[in-house]
Amino acid sequence: MSERVVLAYSGGLDTSVAIGWIAEETGAEVVAVAIDCGQGGEDLDAVRRRALDCGAVEAVVADARDEFATEYCVPAIRANALYMDRYPLVSALSRPLIVKHLAEAARYHGATHVAHGCTGKGNDQVRFEAGLAALFPELRVLAPVRDSGMTRDRAIAFAEDKGLPIDVSRKSPYSIDQNLFGRAVETGFLEDIWNGPIEDVYDYTRDPAEPREPDELVITFADGVPTAIDGRELTPLQVIEEMNRRAGDHGVGRIDMVEDRLVGIKSREVYEAPGAIALITAHQELENVTVERELARYKRGVDQRWGELVYDGLWFSPLKDALQGFVAEANRHVSGDIRMVLHGGRAVVTGRRSETALYDFDLATYDTGDTYDQSAARGFIDVFAMPGRIAGSRDRRATR
Amino acid sequence: MSERVVLAYSGGLDTSVAIGWIAEETGAEVVAVAIDCGQGGEDLDAVRRRALDCGAVEAVVADARDEFATEYCVPAIRANALYMDRYPLVSALSRPLIVKHLAEAARYHGATHVAHGCTGKGNDQVRFEAGLAALFPELRVLAPVRDSGMTRDRAIAFAEDKGLPIDVSRKSPYSIDQNLFGRAVETGFLEDIWNGPIEDVYDYTRDPAEPREPDELVITFADGVPTAIDGRELTPLQVIEEMNRRAGDHGVGRIDMVEDRLVGIKSREVYEAPGAIALITAHQELENVTVERELARYKRGVDQRWGELVYDGLWFSPLKDALQGFVAEANRHVSGDIRMVLHGGRAVVTGRRSETALYDFDLATYDTGDTYDQSAARGFIDVFAMPGRIAGSRDRRATR
Amino acid sequence: MSERVVLAYSGGLDTSVAIGWIAEETGAEVVAVAIDCGQGGEDLDAVRRRALDCGAVEAVVADARDEFATEYCVPAIRANALYMDRYPLVSALSRPLIVKHLAEAARYHGATHVAHGCTGKGNDQVRFEAGLAALFPELRVLAPVRDSGMTRDRAIAFAEDKGLPIDVSRKSPYSIDQNLFGRAVETGFLEDIWNGPIEDVYDYTRDPAEPREPDELVITFADGVPTAIDGRELTPLQVIEEMNRRAGDHGVGRIDMVEDRLVGIKSREVYEAPGAIALITAHQELENVTVERELARYKRGVDQRWGELVYDGLWFSPLKDALQGFVAEANRHVSGDIRMVLHGGRAVVTGRRSETALYDFDLATYDTGDTYDQSAARGFIDVFAMPGRIAGSRDRRATR
Amino acid sequence: MSERVVLAYSGGLDTSVAIGWIAEETGAEVVAVAIDCGQGGEDLDAVRRRALDCGAVEAVVADARDEFATEYCVPAIRANALYMDRYPLVSALSRPLIVKHLAEAARYHGATHVAHGCTGKGNDQVRFEAGLAALFPELRVLAPVRDSGMTRDRAIAFAEDKGLPIDVSRKSPYSIDQNLFGRAVETGFLEDIWNGPIEDVYDYTRDPAEPREPDELVITFADGVPTAIDGRELTPLQVIEEMNRRAGDHGVGRIDMVEDRLVGIKSREVYEAPGAIALITAHQELENVTVERELARYKRGVDQRWGELVYDGLWFSPLKDALQGFVAEANRHVSGDIRMVLHGGRAVVTGRRSETALYDFDLATYDTGDTYDQSAARGFIDVFAMPGRIAGSRDRRATR
Repeated sequence: MSERVVLAYSGGLDTSVAIGWIAEETGAEVVAVAIDCGQGGEDLDAVRRRALDCGAVEAVVADARDEFATEYCVPAIRANALYMDRYPLVSALSRPLIVKHLAEAARYHGATHVAHGCTGKGNDQVRFEAGLAALFPELRVLAPVRDSGMTRDRAIAFAEDKGLPIDVSRKSPYSIDQNLFGRAVETGFLEDIWNGPIEDVYDYTRDPAEPREPDELVITFADGVPTAIDGRELTPLQVIEEMNRRAGDHGVGRIDMVEDRLVGIKSREVYEAPGAIALITAHQELENVTVERELARYKRGVDQRWGELVYDGLWFSPLKDALQGFVAEANRHVSGDIRMVLHGGRAVVTGRRSETALYDFDLATYDTGDTYDQSAARGFIDVFAMPGRIAGSRDRRATR
Repeated sequence: MSERVVLAYSGGLDTSVAIGWIAEETGAEVVAVAIDCGQGGEDLDAVRRRALDCGAVEAVVADARDEFATEYCVPAIRANALYMDRYPLVSALSRPLIVKHLAEAARYHGATHVAHGCTGKGNDQVRFEAGLAALFPELRVLAPVRDSGMTRDRAIAFAEDKGLPIDVSRKSPYSIDQNLFGRAVETGFLEDIWNGPIEDVYDYTRDPAEPREPDELVITFADGVPTAIDGRELTPLQVIEEMNRRAGDHGVGRIDMVEDRLVGIKSREVYEAPGAIALITAHQELENVTVERELARYKRGVDQRWGELVYDGLWFSPLKDALQGFVAEANRHVSGDIRMVLHGGRAVVTGRRSETALYDFDLATYDTGDTYDQSAARGFIDVFAMPGRIAGSRDRRATR
Repeated sequence: MSERVVLAYSGGLDTSVAIGWIAEETGAEVVAVAIDCGQGGEDLDAVRRRALDCGAVEAVVADARDEFATEYCVPAIRANALYMDRYPLVSALSRPLIVKHLAEAARYHGATHVAHGCTGKGNDQVRFEAGLAALFPELRVLAPVRDSGMTRDRAIAFAEDKGLPIDVSRKSPYSIDQNLFGRAVETGFLEDIWNGPIEDVYDYTRDPAEPREPDELVITFADGVPTAIDGRELTPLQVIEEMNRRAGDHGVGRIDMVEDRLVGIKSREVYEAPGAIALITAHQELENVTVERELARYKRGVDQRWGELVYDGLWFSPLKDALQGFVAEANRHVSGDIRMVLHGGRAVVTGRRSETALYDFDLATYDTGDTYDQSAARGFIDVFAMPGRIAGSRDRRATR
Repeated sequence: MSERVVLAYSGGLDTSVAIGWIAEETGAEVVAVAIDCGQGGEDLDAVRRRALDCGAVEAVVADARDEFATEYCVPAIRANALYMDRYPLVSALSRPLIVKHLAEAARYHGATHVAHGCTGKGNDQVRFEAGLAALFPELRVLAPVRDSGMTRDRAIAFAEDKGLPIDVSRKSPYSIDQNLFGRAVETGFLEDIWNGPIEDVYDYTRDPAEPREPDELVITFADGVPTAIDGRELTPLQVIEEMNRRAGDHGVGRIDMVEDRLVGIKSREVYEAPGAIALITAHQELENVTVERELARYKRGVDQRWGELVYDGLWFSPLKDALQGFVAEANRHVSGDIRMVLHGGRAVVTGRRSETALYDFDLATYDTGDTYDQSAARGFIDVFAMPGRIAGSRDRRATR
């Protein structure tokens, strides 16, 4: 048996060409692995056939949408994961899922190498390779686009030369990555950060400025996991799909930002993630109602670090596991309903109710029935303010 | 000379009654101090006259709007101060300013006590007393509403009995605190957290759902301080006022949340802070463009703690001073222009330009002219992924 | 049935008098609860009898030493718990254990109140009351020493007056709290922080300056829990007892510090905790060998916060639970042997070995057999240094 | 004029050979730069002469010991800088100082490249190159040992072949780096982490087990900077030198640990840093006396991050600058005297006094004169415990 390479296969030009390119370059057999994370487009059978037509000895396709929703998107919601307070980690979440399937395929097919089609200045190369290093340390990596000069022009020439079944004429000005949790768009004119995005770059969301009727709905969570919309029990996959549709209709979840890449540069990114943004917004407010103050304050830092780790490609890392344990524990009572209005680009919480609320009407109300004992306040403040009082005295003494 | 009490005076029923109430209760002379933080309403002369008419031996009024904007709101913008990621600290910012004026008045007038009209279950009592403890540790505190039973009914009776020049019939269902940086509303029906706010509670903002033309503007910052709008140089006060008006017209900055009070309970709060939210949004994106990644990541934690300290009434505390030093240093190059569109409740950044940007088109572009050396990536990833690779091997060894 | 009060009973003067004092003051029946956390002294039967002789209607005594070691001391070791980097939380660890037994006794005996003998300026009152608030929110608290004037002199008078079976003549200059995990000493002359401690204050440790032979031993950990010494399998209780004896013989674990109390003041404290310090030292080094870098760096912050929460009396709090989940996960591979020399006040690690080590001789060695690929370094540094390189260029541009 | 290379020159075999090696390899002129950071050994003139004899066109030598003490060691003391709670950053502190001199020399001599003699698996290569990238981004780097195969054997052959004035026969089993702030030793038998260090590896410290008389001294700090010993005013350099001598005589500051390198591996390190450890210990306790609690708690995290950044070679980085601003502000009142006893490997604080202390005898004492108002405690605890009380009720409700 000759050596085998497992290739992360998308069905597009680059990875289709990579099948033959790698075979020629290394003499190895190429096993193509394509994973459906909800990116839409062709069905998996067509993708599978193309891989074989392009020369793969084996093509593995998997519908991993439920796995993606449950094992990757839900933890992100529980961690309110917004990189730089904005970006819900769309691509960064799907990469470890793909990595897991690549590692499994590599073991199954006895591969010694894995290949991906990433360039050398993005985050995804790191996410693939760092993930594989953790899951299957002995695998070596091939990155023909980055390391062996497989530019777009050379890929097209290769495809034409070999007569590969790929339409090389289709030329989009946009570079797009999309999945169940959202969509990322890069394109030349947005590299000038003074330019604003145009309506044409968006696909998951409609223009928020267009007039339409608001959409009010109730999202139910159990332990931080969304489990129902308007009382209909749904899987996480169904919740995210429905929220994408309904929040997308109102232009919710458009993001335009300058972002710090792991590879040391700042880049301009445009995203749309209607379901993710609406669900995280709802989850945050339910946390406000159900999570104790000191835990909530600490969790913000944990959430931030969780998001940074995932963005940086460290999904499979000991720190991420330990943080996720914290996040799961913190979500233990994040259960209840959030009423939300979707309209004009905004997802606005208008009501919350929970059997595990820490909000206590009788303590909070200024009406009759108030059970808060205000006489404690004076003593509280005396002690609470004491370190500052002592420091204040010292400072005046010292600066006299 | 008899003892003197300095009273934080608002001109309203409670503190007007407190003048006579304290005088009767303690025999002391009351000096009323009223500070204009941009809360609007009556002019300061009218307030001053009412204090004297209610029995104050002296009434000090001060227009502190510029001081408030420059010394309190600007640091909040530089710290992107959003308590619980939402609330721009409106009331929490004005309290230390008032405290500073109270302490100065107490020294000038030789007062031994200071008085405030806060209840025993809110944050403001702590902000007043902790601030005063730091600035003037020897002052003692009188809190007639909290500590000596001056309920609203008894206040009205007192006012009528003494013929005080206060209109006690005006009965608003809302309890409001407002200043230059925003407005807070509490009212009975919002204490049921399943109820949504109604349009009637808002004053600084118009309904975002009403159709109107978008407003595009350019905000200029120098070292994190907003200095101009659309090229017109303005003071911080002028910037905030103009942004309140323009962002308020588009319904920007409405906030509805359940919040963790310092005094141990959760409460439901509705805020509107159009200028604050628009300016912080613009500032955050300019930081994205100009602040180095590791500094930006660490600053999120510093910003959070800064906001918590200010919320908790610890403006005058050693930790807040040290954090503010960090924040100032981090803002050293946060200079440039942000173009923003105000529309439908949203303040959306559409462009950014800066002479001190760390965004480098030549490194970021995928076009010709790209100066990024992709050959370094492989080595980077090898080393970056090594701890995870070693841990991955260990984990498989250990669980076998 | 009349009301019942559960009293945290130590057997000493204050709490013995409190039995009758509370009965007289409230008319309630007093149930005394005494917990052995390894503080030594009298046996529990004698303590039980004295409680009854002093008027308790019931006296509950429990040997909780194993529970204390396993449920309280071991988590502290796993969190390397050193408040202010020094103090291993001796008293702070035992309080929640006692609280748990008090709450159980209160439920069992149908008590409405719990009582303790703490003063109003220490941490222990907070630890008792905050713990009880979390475990049994309806219980009310009696604190006769703090709240109803039961000073030492009045306690002695009460004891003599009632003929209580307590030796009131024994007057120690030291105020001591001790348990399995260590010992705390306060005394008047140490309140002058320029004074050094004298040999007489110590009991768990011998003078480290006295010449004696070093003691070398091997401590085995499994998942961060100490399980054996010199190959002999032991319970956590036995490990701590043996380490107290052996490390104490060499004067290990003396601590003299100025400490920040929760109640707002700084106090001077002298502790000795030979076993705790030796075990935490060993555990830290085993973590250095077995915990991945980013997890280790983050864990330092978690450990610090865990220790602060426990010090502050928040053992039974949601944040402590979530942090403890993190700590447990982080200890999953902290297994192996630490060789340690005890001598002259120092516990020095001299060797470590672990099947789950992340230390890899082949990667680390500079000898032949080195498997580290140095060619990756250049690329790593290029990317790692890039943000600083870009910022450096900007800074020079900006300051020109 | 031909191209010029500035070489970080130590005077040893590797960098002496590098002069000719680089000249041969690149045709460039080599300017050797040697910096005295207190490493002892030969005088600078001898080093300078050897560089020229080995073919350097210019040799720059500088006594930077005062600069090192004041600008690098003192900030480390103020940040209590201990990487992994143990290692006072000895080598990591000197590298940025050398980098600064290299960059200055490169500008002065018009160099296009800088060269160092580091291998590819240590931290120092990163510290050199990341520092230079920040200070002089256009400089390119030569690393002949790492990148062009200049192994020790080939270096010796080169030296003999060219007749360089270097004694190549001297073969130490130890690889040593030392400077004013401490000394690092690596050697083959310590790569087995079960082996303990032998007395022979130490040079800055005497065996702590040898009996000798304790040494008591008083260290004075002003704003966190050590300024005097036993009342004699000294420069930072003099303080560190004297403390090295006196603490070294008592075996203080020996460190043996497994450490996380930036380049992804764990390594075994043995250090001795008598002055650094004694001074940091004294500084920490003076902080305990003079720094307010919340500031002290937060500063621990800042200190840790400061140390990690410096260890990781990011001295010249925006985050390090901002953290150092925080640290400086936090040290504003860290002034006073620490009495310390050096003996048997330990540096033990026995007394502290400060005009800016926050320790207040009258508040802390249990004697007559106590000014602490204990009546406030009850109210404090009620409010402080409230979030836990509410969460406790919820938890029981939820788990029923």
